[in-house]
Amino acid sequence: MPGYRGEVQKILRAASVRIGDKVKIESRNRTYLGVLMPRTELGDPDHLVLKLPNGYNVGVRVDSATKITLVERGKPPTLTVPKRETIQDPAKPRVVIIGTGGTIASRVDYRTGAVYPAFTSEEICSAVPEIAEIANIKVVQACNVFSEHMTPELWVKIARAVAREINNGAAGVVVAHGTDTMSYTAAALSFMLQGLFRPVVLVGSQRSSDRPSSDAALNLISAVAVAARSDIAEVTVVMHGSTEDDFCLIHRGTKVRKCHTSRRDAFQSINDIPLGMVRDGQIRMLRDDYHRASSEGRVRVQGRLEKKVALLKVTPGLPSSVIKGIVASGDKGIVLEGTGLGHAPQSLFEGIEFAVKRKVPVVMTSQCLWGRVDMNVYSTGRDLLRLGVIPAEDMLPEVAWVKLMWVLGRTKDLTKVAKLMQQNLAGEITSRTRPDVFLKPMFTPG
Amino acid sequence: MPGYRGEVQKILRAASVRIGDKVKIESRNRTYLGVLMPRTELGDPDHLVLKLPNGYNVGVRVDSATKITLVERGKPPTLTVPKRETIQDPAKPRVVIIGTGGTIASRVDYRTGAVYPAFTSEEICSAVPEIAEIANIKVVQACNVFSEHMTPELWVKIARAVAREINNGAAGVVVAHGTDTMSYTAAALSFMLQGLFRPVVLVGSQRSSDRPSSDAALNLISAVAVAARSDIAEVTVVMHGSTEDDFCLIHRGTKVRKCHTSRRDAFQSINDIPLGMVRDGQIRMLRDDYHRASSEGRVRVQGRLEKKVALLKVTPGLPSSVIKGIVASGDKGIVLEGTGLGHAPQSLFEGIEFAVKRKVPVVMTSQCLWGRVDMNVYSTGRDLLRLGVIPAEDMLPEVAWVKLMWVLGRTKDLTKVAKLMQQNLAGEITSRTRPDVFLKPMFTPG
Repeated sequence: MPGYRGEVQKILRAASVRIGDKVKIESRNRTYLGVLMPRTELGDPDHLVLKLPNGYNVGVRVDSATKITLVERGKPPTLTVPKRETIQDPAKPRVVIIGTGGTIASRVDYRTGAVYPAFTSEEICSAVPEIAEIANIKVVQACNVFSEHMTPELWVKIARAVAREINNGAAGVVVAHGTDTMSYTAAALSFMLQGLFRPVVLVGSQRSSDRPSSDAALNLISAVAVAARSDIAEVTVVMHGSTEDDFCLIHRGTKVRKCHTSRRDAFQSINDIPLGMVRDGQIRMLRDDYHRASSEGRVRVQGRLEKKVALLKVTPGLPSSVIKGIVASGDKGIVLEGTGLGHAPQSLFEGIEFAVKRKVPVVMTSQCLWGRVDMNVYSTGRDLLRLGVIPAEDMLPEVAWVKLMWVLGRTKDLTKVAKLMQQNLAGEITSRTRPDVFLKPMFTPG
Repeated sequence: MPGYRGEVQKILRAASVRIGDKVKIESRNRTYLGVLMPRTELGDPDHLVLKLPNGYNVGVRVDSATKITLVERGKPPTLTVPKRETIQDPAKPRVVIIGTGGTIASRVDYRTGAVYPAFTSEEICSAVPEIAEIANIKVVQACNVFSEHMTPELWVKIARAVAREINNGAAGVVVAHGTDTMSYTAAALSFMLQGLFRPVVLVGSQRSSDRPSSDAALNLISAVAVAARSDIAEVTVVMHGSTEDDFCLIHRGTKVRKCHTSRRDAFQSINDIPLGMVRDGQIRMLRDDYHRASSEGRVRVQGRLEKKVALLKVTPGLPSSVIKGIVASGDKGIVLEGTGLGHAPQSLFEGIEFAVKRKVPVVMTSQCLWGRVDMNVYSTGRDLLRLGVIPAEDMLPEVAWVKLMWVLGRTKDLTKVAKLMQQNLAGEITSRTRPDVFLKPMFTPG
């Protein structure tokens, strides 16, 4: 009964069900039908893990009121991965995979507790043998959190781990990361890693690797290929480019966003085209305006962040008291997600003035996401500029939020903050918007 | 010197420039080059209006330090529209255009003060004669604000004006609205207008009607066509479907979003396909699951709103103090824009618990925008459900925010609020996501 102990183990024994059996669980007005999965020591001991017919694993809380019935005897899933001998080939580049937690870093679905999240290089090379063909793989664990629980403190920890490996001679680094906040971490690493001279690739998976539709293998192979073979000395995100499991896109870390809750091609470049694509482990660059890798260098981590920065979405009638409350709470900067070209209602003007007078920078982005803030077109924009609002060009609101934390970690001088926010530091601002970078709906009327 | 008076008029006279002249203005470290435009009585008297080479009109503040130089003598633009005789044809349906302010309701760019925002039906029929071919047009002004300054109070005012016209026999109503917050107003009207039996169409323009690339005419013609000829008894948004000026899309008012700061095809249906399209004034429906118009009925306005509702975007490490602050400020509801499938960091759990205990509903949407919240997949989601968070299916965050204001205007009972929020009231929730409704980038690698 791998992973189960105490009360849960007793209840499972009493129901005479075993790992791999199809069972019915009735608990707290809910009924679950699925296959009983093994679980790891790390999970909550009061839960059992069930694989549902849709392929997802769920954790179900078990107590004395839970009724468990055997539906169909099954056979336990094979969990022991045949250890593949990993030969360190001196002709191959060395790629370090930094684990942070998340679906990709698991063979089952580690979030439900049914898995072995801390993988070894042998395990990962056995699970996805293609990566060992590309590079000599070393695995390092920086942290182990679901990405929704990622924090600015952990960004710094990951940045230091990345810098250490690159300065120690890795050809490239892959950061395995949950998808929820992957783009925030990618932006943070983009600003923090100074003097980067090797590829740093964030990768994740939208479906856990035990599901038939998992994107984990292709994403990981493509990410390792970019880390080992590309000359992109930037922080990138490599994820599925379609739902066909045929290629991945290489997105710039400051221009990417998770645009769908569940699709494999959820990650999209916004206001920019991807840097390149990976098909069968082969990289094809789509543009040439990127920072080139070099054989020598030294990465430094500028990890100082001002963590008290607010991201505020502007809504009709939003009162000034909201901004005053943010300033009173001690926040040192505010990024507004304004409307249209970068507007906010008059009802907010007094609050903005209040913030700027107290040396709290107010940065303007647009909730449209696509396009560029232009505050010279309409009088509202010009009024806001006069109040001291800093326009953030075509930066994504989340990226502007990360950047403001980083900029305020360097200076609190409003003029310098404004200058740095409007200066392209890590590809977050494109000077001219290409006409072909907008979205179009998949459904096109004939 | 139409529209100019006082000090500004004196300065213009001293520089011997006239309306239509190309002038150079040096003011407060800025230099503007453009054509001097006439202006209306409504604007700020200390500004003059300049048409820049890019087609935009800007208002420039003039004082004693402003230097004005004549660059090239021009001829005054014709502003007097030939009054077209509007014949009320009893065979044609009656469409009421309700003006609220915004680029479309102007012949120049009214926001800069250079225009005549309060148009008459004669004026609008002269400017866009096609609409008089479709219907007998009546124009009503509900308010006159830039859409970024639209408020929940004005939503109610617009709703009442719509209901009045429909109950008085209009075949359909067009609401001319600025684009910045058009989707918020569309959602609000969708919930407020009960028993709607006629089309209500919001329309706007991304480029003012004096620019060569203006989308105003096609949008207005298409909107009037939908109001006069369609059988859609719902609130819709009719805007450009492409940048080609060839067709408009009819979006459901609760499923649309402004996705670009400046493109003419900025409005896109999210998690849904448009209801239909309009080409050359002819409507083609793209689906049949919409509410049908009928010849008789009575619209009521359920305009009670709880205005104290917060929309909070979840960011890594967001502390519970933010939610506690929102509750302390007296807000009666909170919509979270969570990550991924509807997650929030552990650091926020205590704050969420605090809110729910004080009967402040916490609703979960996703900042991915596309896709559906599913809080049963991962343990974080299940933890949040256990704390009482209400999952908002595939609703847009802004729409969930408007809906929560409206629901809380009807009941404060948490169980009833949860039930209403998860129930499809006005097309805001689709029960099954179509696989073909995701965005795809315009740029597709070969």
